[in-house]
Amino acid sequence: MKKIDGGVTAAKGFKAASCQAGIKYQGRTDMAFVYSELPCVCAGTFTSNVVKAACVMWDKSIVESGSPMQAVVVNSGIANACTGKEGYDACEATAKAVEESLGVPYSSVAVASTGVIGMQLPVDKLVAGVKTMSTTLDGSIQAGTDASKAIMTTDTVNKEVAVSFEVSGKTVTLGGMSKGSGMIHPNMCTMLAFLTTDLAIEKALLQEAVSDVVKDTFNMITVDGDTSTNDTLLCMANGLAENEKITDKNADYEAFKEALKFVCEFLAKKMAADGEGASKLFEAKVVGAKDKQDARILSRAIVGSNLSKAAIYGCDANFGRFLCAMGYSGADFDQNDVELYFESVNGKLKVFDKGTPILFDEDKALEIMKADTVTVFVNMNEGEAQATAWGCDLTYDYVKINADYRS
Amino acid sequence: MKKIDGGVTAAKGFKAASCQAGIKYQGRTDMAFVYSELPCVCAGTFTSNVVKAACVMWDKSIVESGSPMQAVVVNSGIANACTGKEGYDACEATAKAVEESLGVPYSSVAVASTGVIGMQLPVDKLVAGVKTMSTTLDGSIQAGTDASKAIMTTDTVNKEVAVSFEVSGKTVTLGGMSKGSGMIHPNMCTMLAFLTTDLAIEKALLQEAVSDVVKDTFNMITVDGDTSTNDTLLCMANGLAENEKITDKNADYEAFKEALKFVCEFLAKKMAADGEGASKLFEAKVVGAKDKQDARILSRAIVGSNLSKAAIYGCDANFGRFLCAMGYSGADFDQNDVELYFESVNGKLKVFDKGTPILFDEDKALEIMKADTVTVFVNMNEGEAQATAWGCDLTYDYVKINADYRS
Repeated sequence: MKKIDGGVTAAKGFKAASCQAGIKYQGRTDMAFVYSELPCVCAGTFTSNVVKAACVMWDKSIVESGSPMQAVVVNSGIANACTGKEGYDACEATAKAVEESLGVPYSSVAVASTGVIGMQLPVDKLVAGVKTMSTTLDGSIQAGTDASKAIMTTDTVNKEVAVSFEVSGKTVTLGGMSKGSGMIHPNMCTMLAFLTTDLAIEKALLQEAVSDVVKDTFNMITVDGDTSTNDTLLCMANGLAENEKITDKNADYEAFKEALKFVCEFLAKKMAADGEGASKLFEAKVVGAKDKQDARILSRAIVGSNLSKAAIYGCDANFGRFLCAMGYSGADFDQNDVELYFESVNGKLKVFDKGTPILFDEDKALEIMKADTVTVFVNMNEGEAQATAWGCDLTYDYVKINADYRS
Repeated sequence: MKKIDGGVTAAKGFKAASCQAGIKYQGRTDMAFVYSELPCVCAGTFTSNVVKAACVMWDKSIVESGSPMQAVVVNSGIANACTGKEGYDACEATAKAVEESLGVPYSSVAVASTGVIGMQLPVDKLVAGVKTMSTTLDGSIQAGTDASKAIMTTDTVNKEVAVSFEVSGKTVTLGGMSKGSGMIHPNMCTMLAFLTTDLAIEKALLQEAVSDVVKDTFNMITVDGDTSTNDTLLCMANGLAENEKITDKNADYEAFKEALKFVCEFLAKKMAADGEGASKLFEAKVVGAKDKQDARILSRAIVGSNLSKAAIYGCDANFGRFLCAMGYSGADFDQNDVELYFESVNGKLKVFDKGTPILFDEDKALEIMKADTVTVFVNMNEGEAQATAWGCDLTYDYVKINADYRS
């Protein structure tokens, strides 16, 4: 497997477009379109929030129906959540505009939205945007990059990645884009992520691989503990790589899963590091846990704690806050087994040893915590399981962004 | 029942003292002592955090043993959590210093700590503090107020309250003090709260009343979602009111419970309003829920959401964030049943009506949200249960306080 340039247009047969539809933002693109020349098998994971956006319900029904997917239309600025029947109608109108423009059935067109909850989408602008984009679809790397920029809200950088790998002697490509960066505490998958591949694979296996990989990637990041109404991950596979179709969990399936994990982890970490107001990537690595579930719960609790996040911002090796977060995570353990370290490119320092605080060198701790990525490394000493979670620090800017985000 | 002046010294036979022990803070008091002339029946609720402070384990064993309690020694500045055997020994040394000074058995002396986790307490200073305070115990209102000031950490105001009520023709008094104000997301009870009463009551009934009342008061507040390692509520009853001892759930028991609820709700709301960096009290009232548990979960999720809290700070009627928080709370419901209002002394405004956003007057919304206390009122329209939760807004100052709290 190797990392290559590009994102959603890297795989064969995928094109993208974007435009300024004027939905909310002025002077920037706010709609993106991803299109496959051929119908694709698709997989998806969606928010577990009981309050699901209209577009989540729309996409879920496509993924669950077993019909193919051929296009995704995304807008930023308005989330189309808490919008009742009018919101669902907006999804249908958007999909029908794609059918009119490109002749693909509207039931194979996914839609996704991100932005303010509780506002209605301007359907005429959406439809006009679809028409514009239908004439500018393009398979270049630049078109994919532009699409990844059009889906940003409070993100400060666009997020895309692509890899190629071998399956039955054929080169397969997998690419993707995603966006954050607030209301990020995915519970099924992250806010918006779109993956495209030319792999030939059975739908059920594609879904299984996606569901499995999401657990250790997108579901392991948090920015603010708020699970969005709009979390959507879609993966489309059009088969144009002409590999022998994957129909069971053989070595080819594992090769794809490895590529998928790389792509999802890459995008997930990018989202965590670019969390609203974030100045650092904050990583928690828990090893020696009783089981995988405990390892996940513990690592997520550490990166999810406001007090831990504020300590990371302040470069304060206040390790009690991390232990406190582990303690209320829901995992059961004995503090007398736990070892805790701070770690970064600047070194590694043990601060808590099986129930007892260590008198550590504060200067060394400060140096470690000043790095761009800070890791809290915990050995539970009670088993073999491990997990890593990613978040960011809590800064003045997070408050600033969210105290006046809507207006 | 009527509210009266005072706090922990309001009830007959209770005395308090405080001193500058120099544990962490300079130029302010940091130890408090509450003492009853007679041994008391006692009740307590404690943190559900797996990582329990040494003092929590100490107090829990007293409350569960069934032995009387006669004194509580509290220090602020260091939490005595994650401190291993040395931390537990510090509890014992403190209790033994009380035995030496006042002749009460050390097994009837509770201890409580609040402050930085993972530092050892200076035992010599604690013991010296106990000796000093033993000579200055005083039953005046002022002594109680001074004690409530000595237990503060990042609190900006001290918190105390007292009420009197009638039981079998006798006047009974109940008073209390508590402190916040970060790492507040109680799950059994709040960080530190001490209640004193001259009521005569059986231990089992005292515990039942306390456990019951805590569910709708201290357990319904949150500042930052971080459940502390030190949460402790102790209630001591010395019987000096000479009422006919309460031994079953009669009208006297209910009168006491009503007083207890008033005192706990008063202190809990004070803690929420004085959350770290807070500029407002943020209240969520959920009515029409399926059951009590759902009502509690939903109201707590609303006041616990970082995005909701930031919107309250920014006076932004961004109601989607509140619905989003309800959606990931764990309660199951249909957004098409839900009505949501903003409410304060400046008025009440409906913004979401059974699945559909309402185009509301933004000026009116701003006026409502500018008040010192802002309520999100939600009717689930699916049953009869209701609950109220209290929190505060998320401000720059929260980040500031916690980015450099330790140093």
